[in-house]
Amino acid sequence: MADIDQLVQMMARLPGLGPRSARRCVLHMLKKRETVMAPLARTLTQALDDIKVCPTCGNLDVIEPCHVCRDPRREDQTICVVEDVDDLWAMERTAGFRGRFHVLGGVLSALDGIGPDELAVTPLLERLAEGAVSEVILALSATVDGQTTAHYLAERLAEAHPDLTVTRLAHGVPVGGELDYLDEGTLSAALKARRPI
Amino acid sequence: MADIDQLVQMMARLPGLGPRSARRCVLHMLKKRETVMAPLARTLTQALDDIKVCPTCGNLDVIEPCHVCRDPRREDQTICVVEDVDDLWAMERTAGFRGRFHVLGGVLSALDGIGPDELAVTPLLERLAEGAVSEVILALSATVDGQTTAHYLAERLAEAHPDLTVTRLAHGVPVGGELDYLDEGTLSAALKARRPI
Repeated sequence: MADIDQLVQMMARLPGLGPRSARRCVLHMLKKRETVMAPLARTLTQALDDIKVCPTCGNLDVIEPCHVCRDPRREDQTICVVEDVDDLWAMERTAGFRGRFHVLGGVLSALDGIGPDELAVTPLLERLAEGAVSEVILALSATVDGQTTAHYLAERLAEAHPDLTVTRLAHGVPVGGELDYLDEGTLSAALKARRPI
Repeated sequence: MADIDQLVQMMARLPGLGPRSARRCVLHMLKKRETVMAPLARTLTQALDDIKVCPTCGNLDVIEPCHVCRDPRREDQTICVVEDVDDLWAMERTAGFRGRFHVLGGVLSALDGIGPDELAVTPLLERLAEGAVSEVILALSATVDGQTTAHYLAERLAEAHPDLTVTRLAHGVPVGGELDYLDEGTLSAALKARRPI
């Protein structure tokens, strides 16, 4: 027996939904059984079977290896290291990156007890050992944990592959952003990295 | 094949979720397959079969008639008319109402083309014709459409059952509300309906 409270509680566990919005979602679904609820139930059940973690890069996809890893037009010499799959999706939406990806599965965090063994660091080193890669872009968040992870990775990579170029994303003024809303750290980073027009 | 974009699009159709929050939900589910995604898929599929509209009052429940309609301890002489099931749930959470319910399924709206035939008005009159009910509480929203519906229903009920008491919810200051944030309409209604302490 699946009762309404149970369904509401499950929906309320999703990020961004609370008890009130979960109730609204459930009521909306129950009113639109054929157009919303039934397709969602079917797709969820099927996605459980179909969507797999790519064994090479850690992306989520219905094919194995994922469509980025199997695309022959992408450059093998560049790997972009991201924290999580949503960052990979964000990079893919820019359509500006033509290399491969590597999903770490998190960042180092003393508070949450996440050390290097919890992240996909060894698989990254194994991929680099194959020798095709010349540049690793560390596209990690500009947070304390993200930057700690970037420093740690840069050291590990320099040890194992001294010839490798390791880069990070540029800091600067967000496109469309106003200067007076920007924090001092970003502004001074943008000033230091100023470019001729 | 259920791919991620399809799942994101379906989640984004739920009220309160947009493309960005739907992506977050989907990623969260894919990371917690066993604890979040699988139970939700199962519960949704089962709820499609189990949850029915109560033929008497219009409530949603796994039993037919619903648990309110079949509860012998509830008073048969009072029916509370609500716009939708979420209003019924809200009334039930107060635990202050011991009568029966009647879900209209909406309010009259010239803009949306909703007339009396689109609402459960005839089933309400049929329930009243059985003779057990002495009071109908019109617990409709204090919006223009809600109040139009209340007036329409009050007239229809007075015609069909002249002895019936028809009431509405009180207007006033919300509990915990500050006076200077309140609109003038509510405040003057609260003043008119003032009570001795």
